[in-house]
Amino acid sequence: MEVSQISELFTTVKSNVIGEYKVNFIRNFDQFNTYSDNKIYIVDNRLLNLYKIELKNFLNPSRLISIEAKEESKTLNYIYPIIKELLHLGVRKDSTLVAVGGGVTQDIVAFISSILFRGIKWEFYPTTLLAQCDSCIGSKSSINFEGYKNLLGTFLPPTEIFIYPNFLNTLDEKDIKSGIGEMSHYFLGKKQSKIFELFENYEKILKDRSLLIKYIKSSLSIKKEIIEIDEFDENKRHIFNYGHTFGHALEFVTNYKISHGQAVTIGINIANYVSLKKNLIDIIKFNEILELTKINFPSYDFKSFEIKDYMSALSKDKKNKGNYLGCILIDQEHKLEKYFIDINDDFKTLIKEFFNHYV
Amino acid sequence: MEVSQISELFTTVKSNVIGEYKVNFIRNFDQFNTYSDNKIYIVDNRLLNLYKIELKNFLNPSRLISIEAKEESKTLNYIYPIIKELLHLGVRKDSTLVAVGGGVTQDIVAFISSILFRGIKWEFYPTTLLAQCDSCIGSKSSINFEGYKNLLGTFLPPTEIFIYPNFLNTLDEKDIKSGIGEMSHYFLGKKQSKIFELFENYEKILKDRSLLIKYIKSSLSIKKEIIEIDEFDENKRHIFNYGHTFGHALEFVTNYKISHGQAVTIGINIANYVSLKKNLIDIIKFNEILELTKINFPSYDFKSFEIKDYMSALSKDKKNKGNYLGCILIDQEHKLEKYFIDINDDFKTLIKEFFNHYV
Repeated sequence: MEVSQISELFTTVKSNVIGEYKVNFIRNFDQFNTYSDNKIYIVDNRLLNLYKIELKNFLNPSRLISIEAKEESKTLNYIYPIIKELLHLGVRKDSTLVAVGGGVTQDIVAFISSILFRGIKWEFYPTTLLAQCDSCIGSKSSINFEGYKNLLGTFLPPTEIFIYPNFLNTLDEKDIKSGIGEMSHYFLGKKQSKIFELFENYEKILKDRSLLIKYIKSSLSIKKEIIEIDEFDENKRHIFNYGHTFGHALEFVTNYKISHGQAVTIGINIANYVSLKKNLIDIIKFNEILELTKINFPSYDFKSFEIKDYMSALSKDKKNKGNYLGCILIDQEHKLEKYFIDINDDFKTLIKEFFNHYV
Repeated sequence: MEVSQISELFTTVKSNVIGEYKVNFIRNFDQFNTYSDNKIYIVDNRLLNLYKIELKNFLNPSRLISIEAKEESKTLNYIYPIIKELLHLGVRKDSTLVAVGGGVTQDIVAFISSILFRGIKWEFYPTTLLAQCDSCIGSKSSINFEGYKNLLGTFLPPTEIFIYPNFLNTLDEKDIKSGIGEMSHYFLGKKQSKIFELFENYEKILKDRSLLIKYIKSSLSIKKEIIEIDEFDENKRHIFNYGHTFGHALEFVTNYKISHGQAVTIGINIANYVSLKKNLIDIIKFNEILELTKINFPSYDFKSFEIKDYMSALSKDKKNKGNYLGCILIDQEHKLEKYFIDINDDFKTLIKEFFNHYV
């Protein structure tokens, strides 16, 4: 079988760091043999069990590092022995690291690639919906430091991305919901009809994950357009914080019990509530998006945290300026823009109202 | 006093990473007040003692981190608490780190700057001759890892460089000799008359360090020309390994007892001996450079290491290909070029001859 039969070039993304990189969709992973002496594979250990057969032809067992791909692994202490193992396997300046896994695996491999020998190449096979629809493009790597989330990091995209949608079949429903939350923030910001389609088919999608492919492609297309203009997140790309500022604070106060994308779904609606109160949108728009997206809210007891702790988490957001919360709001035409909101008592009241009435 | 009176713009260096950066020479450090809430100072602790008065007006004592600037500090373990201290001091995405020290301080601050918040700005006040004449420009940072020298690193130049030549007055003679070794490899590769001048005034320079200023400027100009073409060390910049491949191996087998630049001075002559044996230069040229530069050889018992250990160190150089040593040789016109030399018995004999007859 030809490579062209098992792989479809979806798009090419421009990068200031490496020129450009390709995003491919692949159909038959088991025939996608890329054995090479130059490559070293860093793989989420769960995948090795779940996809024994398909990965058998793909992975060179003598050049394989299996990792625990959990959030706690995104630290300098965890990556230290991985670099040691890479040296043991003979990694060189002209080696390519191959990451197979979700966002955590991506962060670890991208970060190592950007500091080893002042930068080596890496390839990415994203396996979660979040990684396939969002994080695989955009160049960012993130490492936690002493409880500070994503404090360290670099910009280094992979040289090529291979998306195998079948990986979605073994994901927990929670992970699919997380990806749906992430995708919806892209669609809302472009006023795409995709958002209606996505939520109308919500239950069907949870069962038949192949239905997700077209949404993954739409998400990536929307993101590509912006990251090609502002790869280093200096201005235009800030709009992708829509739903995220409020979502991150929610993840924090709930001790990361809520998935990222579901926290974003709520975050979107908080941003919309602020937009409503600032007269950027009307109540019809607010309700329309709320009714559409609330099916993706997590079941969680939102009385379990104090609003003052939520406010305190918001006030520590790294995009803030002084006492002002930097966040993205939406207008009636779904145009996203950055606002700086005074973190005062009125604002606290507004946030309280949201949690009292809408979750 | 105006800033223009105490500071002279020497040159501007183009960079693919940050656009461009300025190199200034400064005359009155004590009046160079750059107190700023946005700046955090990371300073070699020896400087704090030696330049108490001059640094008093310059450093904000409440935003100061003092470090032990020795080779052993260039590790992830050493920089970890520095990052913690930066967070404690309130470092933000828009902060600027100010490095005051030599190459080690530069490596530590540049590396931290390139991974903190995916990159923040840094400024550099180089205090050693090596840092002033060479390392301050060129964007590289280097961190050692588990005994591997400079295994980790990034490319991030400072936003501005301020060279205060008076710092040279408190350097050990050994450090001046090290800088002279480094500068001479730049002059030799350009067949500059500067090399004769430099060595004719050798003893005078060791006493009156202000005589070094013009050589520092020449070195930087030669380096600037190449790094602007090949900032990421992919091809043209390799010529600056002239003397370094053989010098690094010498530093290694002598346990870093010899200064870097003096090892380079010997390395240059080894490269020349290889060039002679490969008929790239004649014996007159070889002797001419040897006679000129040997005043900068360190006093050291070169019988204290085995040639086989030196060969083994050479064979581990990261620019090698297979069993071939990648090194820069010189021709009769002082043109530098990369050669791959078979590391065989003939080559070992040749190296042995050099150490038996010329050091």
